[in-house]
Amino acid sequence: MTTNPMSPALVQQVIAKQFPGLLGIELVETTPERVLGRLRARTEICTVGGMMHGGAVMGFADTLGAVGTFLNMPPGATTTTIESSTKFMAAAPEGQLLTGESVPLHKGRTTMVWQTSIRREDGRLCALVLQTQLMMEPKAVPTA
Amino acid sequence: MTTNPMSPALVQQVIAKQFPGLLGIELVETTPERVLGRLRARTEICTVGGMMHGGAVMGFADTLGAVGTFLNMPPGATTTTIESSTKFMAAAPEGQLLTGESVPLHKGRTTMVWQTSIRREDGRLCALVLQTQLMMEPKAVPTA
Amino acid sequence: MTTNPMSPALVQQVIAKQFPGLLGIELVETTPERVLGRLRARTEICTVGGMMHGGAVMGFADTLGAVGTFLNMPPGATTTTIESSTKFMAAAPEGQLLTGESVPLHKGRTTMVWQTSIRREDGRLCALVLQTQLMMEPKAVPTA
Amino acid sequence: MTTNPMSPALVQQVIAKQFPGLLGIELVETTPERVLGRLRARTEICTVGGMMHGGAVMGFADTLGAVGTFLNMPPGATTTTIESSTKFMAAAPEGQLLTGESVPLHKGRTTMVWQTSIRREDGRLCALVLQTQLMMEPKAVPTA
Repeated sequence: MTTNPMSPALVQQVIAKQFPGLLGIELVETTPERVLGRLRARTEICTVGGMMHGGAVMGFADTLGAVGTFLNMPPGATTTTIESSTKFMAAAPEGQLLTGESVPLHKGRTTMVWQTSIRREDGRLCALVLQTQLMMEPKAVPTA
Repeated sequence: MTTNPMSPALVQQVIAKQFPGLLGIELVETTPERVLGRLRARTEICTVGGMMHGGAVMGFADTLGAVGTFLNMPPGATTTTIESSTKFMAAAPEGQLLTGESVPLHKGRTTMVWQTSIRREDGRLCALVLQTQLMMEPKAVPTA
Repeated sequence: MTTNPMSPALVQQVIAKQFPGLLGIELVETTPERVLGRLRARTEICTVGGMMHGGAVMGFADTLGAVGTFLNMPPGATTTTIESSTKFMAAAPEGQLLTGESVPLHKGRTTMVWQTSIRREDGRLCALVLQTQLMMEPKAVPTA
Repeated sequence: MTTNPMSPALVQQVIAKQFPGLLGIELVETTPERVLGRLRARTEICTVGGMMHGGAVMGFADTLGAVGTFLNMPPGATTTTIESSTKFMAAAPEGQLLTGESVPLHKGRTTMVWQTSIRREDGRLCALVLQTQLMMEPKAVPTA
């Protein structure tokens, strides 16, 4: 399968002005077989109870899985999440630096499945996310 | 079941400094049987492709379902999402004002299930989210 | 979209020798917009505790959603479930005749999303299932 | 946590007359940290297309995760699945002997999360299932 190699810094730059930047996601590793990122549980992505908001956890995971899919596609192709299921298993207190690791479970012709583990500093699993990405081929560019 | 009545403005105030405020969620209706909110697809909650980021969609839904659960609990009780499943069905282009409607499918003794529909301005269903909330009883307050 | 009209009796006959027949699913309505079926909670599809087994509930729903997708495809095309999420909300005691209703939430070019409600005789919702079906085009038939 | 040790043969005997027996599930290992089982893709649990039916795959996984939860509970306690999410990644052709492995991701006070991998004879992952089990305490036995 054609891949789309990009350094963490380059991918980071691409997504910085959008939602992943608002969350504060930092990409650490961006290969077609694994995407690693970090996210600090700042007050503004927490709940009233002082824990990372479930939506922020899901947004973190969704970003990593989408980046992973992107890195497996030919240049110009695009991807969109069509399904995401999350099990929340432990809360992440405000201030914690969470680590997210996303790995592919399935690389098909039209869909990919990525599994993302979000862990606390003590290694405990906060959430496990399974997401299905639909891959859309590059649109043909009209030539003169 | 004891409920916990609060106006949209009051709930809004409680969550304004956290993740729902960062996303820009506006609460419109907050009753134990339905929670309605709105969210504008601003650039900073979109993807590179100019669509609302999946993580923002899930964070919007998660907030509405958690507020709905909260409104059904006795004062002092707390809730946490333990599972969330999302089907993404249509993209929401940047600039759109999305509407989210969350209704309870199940109100049990220890868990509740809320279903949230996220719609575009043209009424099309962008995403359907089912989430399970665990309810935790108020902690006993020590008395002198 | 081309559809594939078949009566409940005809679809029933097609699936009778396979898993839906083993479960005991009876199809009542088979249109591209709704599939209705019934399933009796016999001992052999229950748990030790005398309730319909979760696997039987999911198998019932999966069958209805797959039939619905099939009815929306051109003859010769095939479909497979790629994701299924179930919320179990009330148990179905042995002996009950359950009703399952499956409706499409999304009909896309490559995937469909069907939502199935499984209800007890008293109308109570036992389970809600969301499933994503991948559609595969008919294979070209080699000609002489 | 109190556990509930039982041999595979003993658990097998308990579930033989119910749905797991109808499917044909054979339990191979039943410990509180891992449950292993096998299931042959017989015609009557397949689809018209000659592949193991998605409902049979989900029923296989649900059984293993429920057995695993049961083995972690005190005698007399009961469990029920409250949520199940499945990613289907490869079809299992008729005749194959599938292996299912279920491991706990989370053992909480009121819920457990089990992850089940269903594999073909060639080791390929057919499906990954995440399920949440609710645990219910033993009912007090009235004494004379």
